[in-house]
Formats: sequence, C-alpha cells, structure tokens
Amino acid sequence: MGVLRVASEAPLYERLADGLRRQIRRGQLHAGERLPSLRRLGRLQGVSVATAVEAYLQLEREGLIEARSRSGYYVRAVAALPRVGGAPKSARAPREVRNPALLGVLDVLVRDDLVPLHAATPSPDLLPTAALAACGARALRRDAGAALAYAPPQGLAELRERIAWRYARCGVDVHADEVVVTAGGMEAITLALRSATRPGDVVLVETPAYYGLLQAVAALDLRVVEVPNRADGGIDAAAVAALVERHPVRAAVLMPNFNNPTGGLTGEDAKRAIVAACAARGVTLVEDDLYGELAYSGERPSPLRRYDASGCVITCGSFSKILAPGLRVGWLLGGRRSAALLRAKCFSSVTTATLPQLAVADYLARHDFDRALRRLRRALADNRLRYRAAIARHWPAGTRVSEPDGGLALWLELPAGIEGQALFEAALANGIGVLPGHAFSSRGDYRHHLRLSFGPRWSETIERALRRLGALACALAR
Amino acid sequence: MGVLRVASEAPLYERLADGLRRQIRRGQLHAGERLPSLRRLGRLQGVSVATAVEAYLQLEREGLIEARSRSGYYVRAVAALPRVGGAPKSARAPREVRNPALLGVLDVLVRDDLVPLHAATPSPDLLPTAALAACGARALRRDAGAALAYAPPQGLAELRERIAWRYARCGVDVHADEVVVTAGGMEAITLALRSATRPGDVVLVETPAYYGLLQAVAALDLRVVEVPNRADGGIDAAAVAALVERHPVRAAVLMPNFNNPTGGLTGEDAKRAIVAACAARGVTLVEDDLYGELAYSGERPSPLRRYDASGCVITCGSFSKILAPGLRVGWLLGGRRSAALLRAKCFSSVTTATLPQLAVADYLARHDFDRALRRLRRALADNRLRYRAAIARHWPAGTRVSEPDGGLALWLELPAGIEGQALFEAALANGIGVLPGHAFSSRGDYRHHLRLSFGPRWSETIERALRRLGALACALAR
Repeated sequence: MGVLRVASEAPLYERLADGLRRQIRRGQLHAGERLPSLRRLGRLQGVSVATAVEAYLQLEREGLIEARSRSGYYVRAVAALPRVGGAPKSARAPREVRNPALLGVLDVLVRDDLVPLHAATPSPDLLPTAALAACGARALRRDAGAALAYAPPQGLAELRERIAWRYARCGVDVHADEVVVTAGGMEAITLALRSATRPGDVVLVETPAYYGLLQAVAALDLRVVEVPNRADGGIDAAAVAALVERHPVRAAVLMPNFNNPTGGLTGEDAKRAIVAACAARGVTLVEDDLYGELAYSGERPSPLRRYDASGCVITCGSFSKILAPGLRVGWLLGGRRSAALLRAKCFSSVTTATLPQLAVADYLARHDFDRALRRLRRALADNRLRYRAAIARHWPAGTRVSEPDGGLALWLELPAGIEGQALFEAALANGIGVLPGHAFSSRGDYRHHLRLSFGPRWSETIERALRRLGALACALAR
Repeated sequence: MGVLRVASEAPLYERLADGLRRQIRRGQLHAGERLPSLRRLGRLQGVSVATAVEAYLQLEREGLIEARSRSGYYVRAVAALPRVGGAPKSARAPREVRNPALLGVLDVLVRDDLVPLHAATPSPDLLPTAALAACGARALRRDAGAALAYAPPQGLAELRERIAWRYARCGVDVHADEVVVTAGGMEAITLALRSATRPGDVVLVETPAYYGLLQAVAALDLRVVEVPNRADGGIDAAAVAALVERHPVRAAVLMPNFNNPTGGLTGEDAKRAIVAACAARGVTLVEDDLYGELAYSGERPSPLRRYDASGCVITCGSFSKILAPGLRVGWLLGGRRSAALLRAKCFSSVTTATLPQLAVADYLARHDFDRALRRLRRALADNRLRYRAAIARHWPAGTRVSEPDGGLALWLELPAGIEGQALFEAALANGIGVLPGHAFSSRGDYRHHLRLSFGPRWSETIERALRRLGALACALAR
C-alpha cells in the first residue's frame, strides 16, 4: 500500500533517541537514573559517538534528560504522563447539548492578536505554501474565465479523482463518482448530519468532542449520547455497541484517527467492531478523518470506511490541516448516499469555490504531496516533544499531558485546584490563546482540562508563551 | 447618491431607439404601421440621419421593426407581451414543499455540455474577469501564507468595509461590523433561515420562487405560504400584510429587486409597506438582493433594509452575478442578529475561503467596479432585447415573455397546449439547457412556463438555440 514507517523517514540519531524515549516513558529508565556514556551508547547501539551526541542533545532539548557537569547524562524528573479519559461512563438517557461555553469559543477564534495555541492549524511555513500559491496563480493565468466560473456542484473531476486515489492507496475502494467536494471538513460533517437525521433524533458523539461538532448538533436540535474517546486508546468498541443497542441512535459522528482534542487513536480491530455494530443497527456512521494523514509513524491509520461493507459510513476529510486551511477545500465520501448529499450541498451553498479546487488539483498533479506530508509530520512530531518538554519544565506538578501519535493538539489535565476556564482567561489577558476543556463537552465537563495546539512552529515566542502559561497555572494553584 | 440614469449611459441612437421601443410596447405604434423616414425621424428628434439609421438597425436586430424593400421601416407583428402572474391567489393553510421536480433541477445544473440557457450567470467575458484574476494572482504573490491561511470567520475586514460602503452609497446605513461574508448568496440565505426558524415553522415565500430556496425550505422542514411575485410589478404589499396577519409566519424570504424567475421589481412604496407589515408581526424578513445591482436603468432599487427601522430585515447578497460566480463570495447584513448569524456560519462552514475574499477586496480597491457594472448592465439589457426578439420571431404565437428591467432571466408562458416539462426535455435532447417552470413552485405550478437565462453573450450559437427551441415548441404545439 506504499505507506512509510518511521524508521525509513527518520535519521539515525532520531531513531536512537526514539528508543531511549520509549524506555523513559515505560519507566525502564527511571527519573534520576544515569544514562550510558556517549562512547558506551555508541558501542551498544552500533552507531558513531557523533550520532549518540545528537540523540542525547535531542532528548535534552525535549526536557527528557539533562547533562550534569563532568558527570554525564541523567533522566529528568518529568511530570506524570497521562491516563486521560478513564472508564466509559454509564449510558444515560439521550440529552440535548446544553453548554454555554460553546458560544464563548468563537470570541477566541476570531482574534488574531494572540499567540495561537488555540488554533489547531499548522503554521504556513510547515505547509507547501509557496508551491500551492504558484499553482493558484497558474490556474488564474491559464484560464481566468474557468477559474472564476462556477465549478460543478460535486466538485472538479480531476480533484475528486485525486482524493479517491489517495484512499485507494490505503486500501479503501473509493470511486471519484462518490466524492463530493465541500467547503472544508466542517461543511462535510454538517451535510452528513443534516442528511442522516431529523430534529429530535439521537446521535452518538465522543466525549470529549470537537466544539464545532457539538455546536452543529445543538443547532440541528439533535440529542446526544456519548462514548469516551481516550487519549491512550481512542474509542471502546464495546461501549459503542452497548450504546447503539440501548438507545435509538440515528447517526454517530466519530473521530477514530487522532481525536480532537485527546489525540486518541482507535485500534483497527475496534474500528471494525464499531462499523459492524453501527451497520447492524442501521446507524449512519459519520467519520471525521481530518487527521488521518497526520500519523507521525508515517503509517496512515485506516478510515472506518475500510471496514464498511454495508455502506453505513460517510467519511469526511479536508485539506485544511495538511495543505492550506484558508482554501476551504474538503470532501465527503458518500457511498450510495452521494446523490442525496450532493443535493444537500446544492441547496446549502450551491458549489465549492473553483479557484481553490484548481489550486489543490494542480498542486497534487505537479508536486510530491507525500514528501510535503512527511515534512509536516516530522515537524509536528518534533513540536509535540518540545511543547511537552516545556510543559514538563514549567507547569505545576501534577499536570498531565496527552502524548498523541498524530494530529496537532495536546489535551491537558490540570491539577485539581486549577480551573481550565480560569487559566484560559488568564492566558487571554496575557495575549495567549488556548481553549478551555469544558468547550469539548455537551454539558461542560472537563473543567480542569485545556486543549493546546502545537501547530505553530517552535520559536522563542512559543517557548515564552508556554512558560508564561505554566507560571499562570502555578499562580492559580496557590 | 451618485447613481446613474440610463440617459447618461446610453449613446444617442440607443436613447432614440428606446423612445420608439416604448411607443411600440405601449401600442402607440401598431404592428404593421409604417415608421417615419430616416430623414423625417432625424428632423423630428433633432438628430443626424446616421443616428436615425443606427436606431432603426438596432430595432430591426431586436425584431421589433422590419425594413421593406424600397418602402421604408414597419413595426413588426410581435408576440403578445406578458401579463405573467395574475391576481394574488387566496391564502390557504401553510403547507410543506412537495415538488419532486425540484430534485430534477440538479441533473441539469451539473451538465456542462449544454447551451447554458438554464444557468442564471453572466458569461465570463461580460465580467471584469482578467482584472479580477490579476488581483487574485497579486494576493498570492504578496503574501502566500496569508492568502492560504484561515480568514476570520466573519470575513476580511477590508472586504466587509467595501460591502458596507456600497450600501451606504444607496442610502442604507450599514456598518462593516454587521456584515458577515458567506460562501455565496445561498449560504447567506440558508444561514438566515436556519437562525430565524425551527422545524415546522411557517415561512412566507414568493410564487414563483428560486428553486434553491424551495429546496432549502424543504430540507429545513418548514411550511410555506405564498405571495405572488408578478413580472409586471413584483410583490403586492397588501397580500403580504394579509398573509402575515392570517398565518403564524416566522420568516419571509423575498426578492423584491428582479425576482428570480419573473424579473418583477417591487415598487418602493410597496417595499416600505412590506417591511412595516413584517415588523409589526415580528416576522424576520430575509431579503434576497442578488440582482439589486443589475437594474438596466443604472438606478439601483433600494434593498428592503432601507425601510427597516426595527431590525427585522436580513439582507443577503453576492458577487456571484456581478463579478465572479465561482469565487463563492457573498454576504449578509445581519443587523442586531449578526452575532447569532456568525455563530451559525462558524458551525456550518467555519469561515469563507480567504483567497477569493482577497481577490474581491483587491479588485474593489484598485478598479472601477461601477464602470464594470455599467458595462455588464448594458450587455444584459442588450441581451434581453435580442433574446426576446428571437423568441418573438421563432416561437409559437401566444408565447408570452417577461420584459424585466434588471437581472438576467426571462420568464416565459407557453401557449396552453405546450408543457414546460416537455419542452425542457426536448431541449435537453437537443443539447440546450432551460429550466421548466414547475421547478419554481412549492407544489409544481407553472406547468406551462420556462425560465431562460440571457446571461450568455449573444452569439450565433445562442441564436441557433433560441430558434431551435422555438421549432421544438411549435412541434409540441401540434
């Protein structure tokens, strides 16, 4: 299937660092323990001393180890690593989304004067921005009339073919005819929800879940039942099966690949079981696959669609997080529902803007998108380590941080005394954007949580902001 | 207010032709009547013989007069002119939109192999396409990162200011803060409807009405009551007042400026009365002002918003018909509802694509948009005459055609024996796109009507298509 593993992407020192990182995480190397000397490490691992140096420097930058003068390298005492989530909650009656905090999120999203740790978007310089811009300019030069005229409501055929082909590469049989191009992933999800439900219906959502989804669910007058998505394992298939058994669930909206905000990755067996449970009950399964291409291992986790024999899955995706947020080019794979979804698209926004579609299609035809993706994943994986290290250094003891293997958000649980809302407000007052955890719940749970994006490229500004946030959190803890 | 009248835009011969045209329409010059000689006309009107020749040639091209060898010019026997619409229907109980024909429209819209008389869009060469494309390319060159990054959900400030300013020029006090940029006019209208209504609510719509609106109403589970929009006078304010009095109308969606499809223009007094009636009953008035800038006289008719003291009007507009269809840049003026509408925008499509917004804002800043609009209006006014003349020449006797003073569609009533659906199907089989009248009704009225766009630039292809349609209609009449 032509996907790549981390081993073939990463330089030697990084592979070496990765092995040490794992041992530290698993507790095989303890806080305070002395690490092998550079020479010994080189010998043990069959690498040069220079490579061993690089590996230790990397781990030092990440805050995982520290050099003590004339003595060598030691494992640092890092903050406790996460067990975010916990046991599935017992199923309750479906309920409406009632969370006033949802409305407050927008006030933050519209601000452009903040250090943008609230916006789950990669920096433009992590994306192939120049190449894509050249493609847009070329489309305008080649045929301005066509670039500014209506595209077919379903989207440009050449773009739909490229989208279908990318799924085919990861073993999912998608035909371009069932792809509908949308104004970003959010339009895809709302179209799917609108076409699958009527007001008052019950939908299954994750907890925590993307605030935008919860707002859309509330606007459509739907009721929810919730299944936990854990940072360390994603969705529990048995819990999904129990919920669709117990409640009249019409549709489910799930994000098995790097949930926003937890980063949880649902296993392949669980995915298969989730699809089977939904198919058996006639539940339309709307899959938010926004981060499927952002697995740091380079091995793309399957979309749910891969396990869908009955046609119950509508997969939604977007170029927003992997190519250009502002082009608003997303898609849905409608399967046998494509015609109905296309009609819904037509009478909500007619068609998607042509020029962005041409720019993306041209980029995919002319450039090595996989290479750009590898570069992005590497940068995000590196960011994750740096951000986590800064948090380990500067935030109050007891802060727990997710450790996602993909996506671009950290999910933090603050020590019991600190309210997410209070830190969110203190951060705003200091010109730093973060999102409070309770915005990711239908009723305002996660009052001690925060979501923090590591899409912005690592810089002194970011480091200062993370240090400042830590100081604010420490002050709130007192 | 700086708006222009036709007199100052049109060349002398056109003004002369216009006077004659009016006399023919009003019956002051009868079919078969001989017109003054060129020399006499010049003398009577104080113009040169050359100008008189130009005027007669123009009217001859339009099919209104004909030259008879050695004898002079005569008024042609043209088809009966319209009285489309008729008396307001008596109000019935609100009902659901049930019209299977609505779903068929999409099949035509997605086809790009037809002579596009079905698509209410100006040809790219009637729009300032090259200048706009240059602005798009400049935006990409100037700051690719910004052009490809998210725009604020409300839209770019510089664009919102330009939109507000254009309303200010026609006497409407709009602040940039209440403008929300949308993915075209359709998103604006659906956002307004969604935020103003709940499923089961009653909305007031026009009959006939834009098929996309009727589809959106059906998708939102709304019920309708209908007020006629007549080609020769638009909406009857008394009928609106009676309907909102009699029924629990929550919102009204009206198109007072050149209704699609009738082209009807509602008078200013009627607009004022309509706003007053809705305000008094707490009805949210969603105004589709898509064609407000397309009055051939050059005098922009007021939006309903001009008469809105209470804040009941949400005005929706778009650059789709006046600058570039495929950029998908529209707007709404939300007044005091702007914050709620912006939230609805956020959780249905997050934000509007940035590059199209930059291209439009840059175009408006650098170019004389009013000049481009004048050119477009002149071309459309000319098209309208040519299309009508071709219909008068080639279509069966008894065909009635609207005579809009703005917009880009003709509304035709076929002689009683001919079904719109049959002609629509015959046209498709001949590679010509038109839309059947029953697509513009909540329950499939207007079975003998057609909508025909005159957005495509006049050409031999268009003339042939209109002739062919006439022959098909004649064949169906037999």
